[in-house]
Amino acid sequence: MLISPGNLLSKINSPEDLRKLDAAALPQVCNELRQYIIDVVSVYGGHFGASLGVVELTVALHYVFNTPDDQLIWDVGHQAYGHKILTGRKNLFHTNRIMGGISGFPNRKESPYDAFGVGHSSTSISAALGMAIASGLEHNKQRQHIAVIGDGAMTAGLAFEGMNHAGASDSNLLIILNDNCMSIDPNVGALRAYLTDITTSQTYNKIRDEAWHLLGKLSNFGISAQEIVSKVQNVLKSTLLNQSNLFESLGLRYFGPIDGHDIDHLTHVLSDLKHIPGPKLLHCLTLKGKGYGPAEKDQTKWHAPGLFDKVTGEIQKKVHTSPQPPKYQDVFGHTLVELARENKKIIGVTPAMPSGSSMNIMMKEIPDRAFDVGIAEQHAVTFSAGMATRGSVVFCNIYSTFMQRAYDQVIHDVCIQGLPVIFCLDRAGLAGADGATHHGAYDIAYMRCIPNMIVAAPMNEQELRNMMYTAQHEETQAGESAFTIRYPRGQGVMSDWKTPLQKLTIGKGRQLSDGDAAAVLSLGHIGNSAAEACRKLSEEGLRVAHYDLRFAKPLDKALLHEVFRKFDKIVTVEDGCIQGGFGSAILEFAADHGYQAQVKRLGIPDEVIEHGEQPELHQLCGYDQPAIEKAVWALVGVAQSVPRS
Amino acid sequence: MLISPGNLLSKINSPEDLRKLDAAALPQVCNELRQYIIDVVSVYGGHFGASLGVVELTVALHYVFNTPDDQLIWDVGHQAYGHKILTGRKNLFHTNRIMGGISGFPNRKESPYDAFGVGHSSTSISAALGMAIASGLEHNKQRQHIAVIGDGAMTAGLAFEGMNHAGASDSNLLIILNDNCMSIDPNVGALRAYLTDITTSQTYNKIRDEAWHLLGKLSNFGISAQEIVSKVQNVLKSTLLNQSNLFESLGLRYFGPIDGHDIDHLTHVLSDLKHIPGPKLLHCLTLKGKGYGPAEKDQTKWHAPGLFDKVTGEIQKKVHTSPQPPKYQDVFGHTLVELARENKKIIGVTPAMPSGSSMNIMMKEIPDRAFDVGIAEQHAVTFSAGMATRGSVVFCNIYSTFMQRAYDQVIHDVCIQGLPVIFCLDRAGLAGADGATHHGAYDIAYMRCIPNMIVAAPMNEQELRNMMYTAQHEETQAGESAFTIRYPRGQGVMSDWKTPLQKLTIGKGRQLSDGDAAAVLSLGHIGNSAAEACRKLSEEGLRVAHYDLRFAKPLDKALLHEVFRKFDKIVTVEDGCIQGGFGSAILEFAADHGYQAQVKRLGIPDEVIEHGEQPELHQLCGYDQPAIEKAVWALVGVAQSVPRS
Repeated sequence: MLISPGNLLSKINSPEDLRKLDAAALPQVCNELRQYIIDVVSVYGGHFGASLGVVELTVALHYVFNTPDDQLIWDVGHQAYGHKILTGRKNLFHTNRIMGGISGFPNRKESPYDAFGVGHSSTSISAALGMAIASGLEHNKQRQHIAVIGDGAMTAGLAFEGMNHAGASDSNLLIILNDNCMSIDPNVGALRAYLTDITTSQTYNKIRDEAWHLLGKLSNFGISAQEIVSKVQNVLKSTLLNQSNLFESLGLRYFGPIDGHDIDHLTHVLSDLKHIPGPKLLHCLTLKGKGYGPAEKDQTKWHAPGLFDKVTGEIQKKVHTSPQPPKYQDVFGHTLVELARENKKIIGVTPAMPSGSSMNIMMKEIPDRAFDVGIAEQHAVTFSAGMATRGSVVFCNIYSTFMQRAYDQVIHDVCIQGLPVIFCLDRAGLAGADGATHHGAYDIAYMRCIPNMIVAAPMNEQELRNMMYTAQHEETQAGESAFTIRYPRGQGVMSDWKTPLQKLTIGKGRQLSDGDAAAVLSLGHIGNSAAEACRKLSEEGLRVAHYDLRFAKPLDKALLHEVFRKFDKIVTVEDGCIQGGFGSAILEFAADHGYQAQVKRLGIPDEVIEHGEQPELHQLCGYDQPAIEKAVWALVGVAQSVPRS
Repeated sequence: MLISPGNLLSKINSPEDLRKLDAAALPQVCNELRQYIIDVVSVYGGHFGASLGVVELTVALHYVFNTPDDQLIWDVGHQAYGHKILTGRKNLFHTNRIMGGISGFPNRKESPYDAFGVGHSSTSISAALGMAIASGLEHNKQRQHIAVIGDGAMTAGLAFEGMNHAGASDSNLLIILNDNCMSIDPNVGALRAYLTDITTSQTYNKIRDEAWHLLGKLSNFGISAQEIVSKVQNVLKSTLLNQSNLFESLGLRYFGPIDGHDIDHLTHVLSDLKHIPGPKLLHCLTLKGKGYGPAEKDQTKWHAPGLFDKVTGEIQKKVHTSPQPPKYQDVFGHTLVELARENKKIIGVTPAMPSGSSMNIMMKEIPDRAFDVGIAEQHAVTFSAGMATRGSVVFCNIYSTFMQRAYDQVIHDVCIQGLPVIFCLDRAGLAGADGATHHGAYDIAYMRCIPNMIVAAPMNEQELRNMMYTAQHEETQAGESAFTIRYPRGQGVMSDWKTPLQKLTIGKGRQLSDGDAAAVLSLGHIGNSAAEACRKLSEEGLRVAHYDLRFAKPLDKALLHEVFRKFDKIVTVEDGCIQGGFGSAILEFAADHGYQAQVKRLGIPDEVIEHGEQPELHQLCGYDQPAIEKAVWALVGVAQSVPRS
C-alpha cells in the first residue's frame, strides 16, 4: 500500500528543506507529519503515542537548529519517528522495525542525523555532554548539543549523574525535558510529584508568565537574548525562585514550563536559547498521543498498539480459530498473584514495566505488595535486596536487556550477601522488532559467572510456573542463592497452561526423547524447536536424544555424566550468546570431568543482531529448528579425527 | 602488640552497654573511640580518615537508636570502624582486613549489627528503604531505618533513584548525609557546589538557627517533637524555604546542616527525628580525619595511609635495597600522559578515582583533557561514548569491580554502536584486603560475551604500555571495537619499565617457553607465576610450554591451532572467575575446531572470596605458582582414558 505524505511534507527530504520554509508554514508541516505517522503506523505498526507527542518539538528542533552539525539526541528514541521522516527516511518509513528495514530507534549507522544510538532510557544527557565537551576542546562554540529526555527517563540514576556533571561544566548543552507524565505506564516517584508541583504552582506560573511575556516584548525591540535572560534572571532572583528549582540546584539554567504543542512559541524559545551559553534545561509539557483522540485517552494501550483502523480507532486483534498459548509475561503475572495469595511474604517489584511484565496484575490484586519503582533498575535490585534481608520473598521482574543496568547490584547487593532474591528476566533471548538494543542476549553469560546464583529457563508455561513455585519455597529461600528465571518475549506453547504447581529439584534437568546417534541439550523455550528438530530427525532415521537442562546453573551433573558417557556428539541450543553461555557451561563440565566429545554450540553469534521477527532472527543466527537439524547432521556426518602433530 | 581501649570503651561490648551510660559520658567515649582507632590503625593499617570523621555520629546513632533491631546501614562502609568496635568486635579489630580476620566493611555474616553488606558506594538508601517498607508491611512502626551516606556517594545515580522512590513513600527512613566534601579525593560536580551553597548561605543559616533554637526551647517545655516540627515547618514555609531545597523537592524532609562533631547536639537531634515519621534527611557536616592533625590536613593521603607513627604522623615507607617495579596504576598514569602529549585527541576519564587510578597525573599535566566525573560510573562510560562519536580517543579508567556498575553502558552505548572507547580496568582479579566487594573477578566473563569488544591483559609493564599504545592507534580507533585492558592492583615486575612503545597486533599472543609434556596458557600478570612454575617444572625434568595469550578476545587462533596440534594436556591460568572466563574461551576454541584435549582451568572458583593478601588469595584459589605446578603434574600423571558406555 502506498501512503502519500501531505503537500509540504512530500517536498521535505531533509531538514534543510524544512528550514527553507516560512515559519508560518510550520503548523501545516506538523499536521502533515502527524497524519503521516498515523497513516503509516496504523498499517505497518510500531511505537505510536510517543512520536505523536513530540511532533511540534521535532519540527521546531530541526527548523531552529543546524542538524546534523548540531547534535540532537533523542533519549530512548521510540519517539523519533517524526525525526526519521524529516531526515531523509520518509520513503523507508514503512520498513520501520522490519528485518532489513530501518530501525525503530535512532541508529548511528542509519543516518548522520542520528547523533547517538539509543533504545534504553536516560543516556542522552551524558552522551550530549560528552559531545559538547569534545566540541569545546575543538574550540567550536557554535555547535549546539541537545538532549531530549522524558520525565520518566529523568528518574534513572544515569540521567542524574549526567546532570550533576553538566551543571558543573560550562558546556553548550540544552536539555529538553519532555514532560508527558508517562513512560509506557504512568510515571511514579518524587520527581514526578515535583514536576507536577512546579507546573501547577500558581506563584511559579505567575512569575514564569511574566518572565516570558517580558522576553517576548523585549525581543520585539531587538534586544539580545543574553540581555533578556539577565533581566529575567534578576526577576527570578528577586523572588528567590532561582533557588527554588531542583534543576537550578544542579547548576542548570531552568526555562519553562512551556506548551510543547505550540510550534510558534517553541521555535521562538529555542531560537533564543541558542544564544544562551552553558548548560540549560527547557521544560516542555506535551501530551503522549497528541492529535489522535483514542491515543490521548489511553496512553499505555497506545504506546505500541499494533495495527489499527485509523478512522474508528479500533485496534486489530489477531483472529484465532483455536485456543492460543498465553504470553510468558502473563503466565508470570497470574502465577505471581496465585503464589502471593498463599505466601504473604511475596513481594513484586518492577522498574517502570507494569504492563510489559504483567506485574500490573499483582499491582491491581495485591497493591500493597507490588511496587513500580520507576525507570530505576539499580534501585529495583538493591531495594529488593533490602527487603530480602527482612525475610521478604521478592520477585524482581526486569527485562533481560535492562538487567544489564543493575549488574553490580546483582553481584554486590544480592549474591555476595547470599540473599535469595528472585529475578524474572522477561524478553530474554532475541527480542524481535525492537532490535539490537533490546535483545536479551547476554544474561546467561553474565549471570552464571556470579557465585550464589541459580540460572533457570523454562521450556514452557508449566515449567515457568514450577520454577516460580520452587524459587519462593522455604528451603530455597533459606539458602544463599539468588534465583534467576529467564524467559522470552511472546507466547509459550500450552493453551491449557494453568497446571498444578510442582516443586522442582534445583539443578535437575529432564530427558525428553531417547536416541543413539547424538544428544541435543537445550535450555529454555528454544527447546521446543530442538524437540521438533529431534522429531524430524527421527522421522529421517536419525535417533537423537533430547535433554532439557532447565538450569544453566547449577548444571545437572548426574544427567550430564549419563549424556557424556553415552554420546560423543552433542549439540547445545540456547537463545543467548554462545560466548560464555549455556553451551560453554557444558564445555566446562566436560573439561572438568575429562570427557572427550564433539560439542557444537548453537546460539547468538558474537555480532550485533539487528531487528526482525523472532523466527527470522533465530534462522539468521542458526538455531531455529532446521538449523538444529542441520547441525546434528553435520556433526554426525563429519569425521571425528583431528590432526595432531 | 596489645592495644588497650580507654576506661569507658573497655567496658563497652555492645551498644546496650553504651546506652547504659549517661549522656554526659559520651564525649569521653568519643575520645576513647577515636584514640583506639588511631592506636590500632597506625599499627595494623586500614582505612583511616573516614572512620575518624564519623566517631561522634557513630556513638550518637548507637546511643539513640535501638540497634540491631533498628537498621543501620553505612554507605560504602570503610567508615564503620567505630561501629565495629562498639558492636562486639573491639577485641578482633586488630584482625581487620587480614585473612581470616574481620572484614574492612560491614558484612551481614559478621554481625547482626551489620544490617547490609557494603563496599561499593550509594547502595544504602535503596537498601534501607527496602527494609523500611518491609517493616511497614509487618505493621512495625517502631523500627527505625537509617542510611548514613557521604556527599560523594550521593552523586551516584543509584542514590538518586533511591531518593526518588523514598520521597514518594511514607516509610520510616532517615537518611544522614555525611557531608565532608570528600570521597577518596575531593568531590566534584553540581551537587557538591549546591551543598556548599546551602551550608554557607546566610539566609538559610539564619532561618535554620532560629528553627533549631525554637526546637530546643520548646522541648524544654515538654512539647512533642511532632508539634515542634509542625511549628518549624510553618516557619520554613512562610519563607518559601521549604521549596528551596533540592531534597525537599524530592519529597524528603530536610534538617540541618548541623555540626557532626557536636555529640550533644547530635544525640538531641537524632532523638527528636526518631519521632518524626516519613522519609527525612539530616545534613551533617563532618571533617574527614577529625581529631588527628595530619589526617585533617591531607585527607586523600590519609584515606588509607598504611602503617604510621601516631606521634609524629610519619607514614612508614617500605625500605627496599633494590629498585622496585612500579605499580601498574602508575605505569598507566605516566604512559597516558606520554601518549596524550603526542596524540591531542586523547582524553582521560575517571569516576572519582584520580589518585587510585593515577589519572591525577594527567589531571595535573593536561587538565583540560582529563575528567573526574565523580562517583558516576554509568555516566563515565556514556560520557566517554559521546566523546568518542566526535573522534576523541577516550581512556576511561574504572576499577574492574566498579565497572560492573556501568555494564549496560558498555553494551548499549559503546559496543552496540561500535565506538572505540578504551577501558582500563584497574584492580582486576583478586584485589586483596578490600575483600569480596572489591575483587575484580568477573570482568573477563562479562566483557568477552559482548560483540565489538577486545579484551586484553598485560603480563608486565611493557605489555601494558604497548597495549595502551596499540589501543589509541589510528587503525584501532577506526575500527568498531571497544578495547578493554585489565590489570591487577599492585606492582608489576620490571623496575626498568619505561620501555619504547611498540604496536601489538590485536589478538596476537606469544610463546614464552617451549616444552613437550604440556602447555600452560596464561592471561595477564598471573602469567609471571605461570612462568616461574614452568621454570621449576623444567628443573624437575618436566618440559612445559608456556604461552602468554595477551588477549582473551580475540583469541590468537593461529597460535592456539599450534598449541592444540602439539599438546593434549593444557592448563589455563587467569586471575578471574573460571566460569565463562579465559579458560572457557579456550574450551570454546577447542570445541569449535574439533580438538580433543584435557584442559584444566585455574582461576577464581565459583565462590565468594573474602579478604586477604593477594598471594594468600591466589594460593587459596589454587592458582599461585605451586598450584600451577601441581595442576600440571596432576594432568600429566593422570590416566587419560574416560569411561564411556
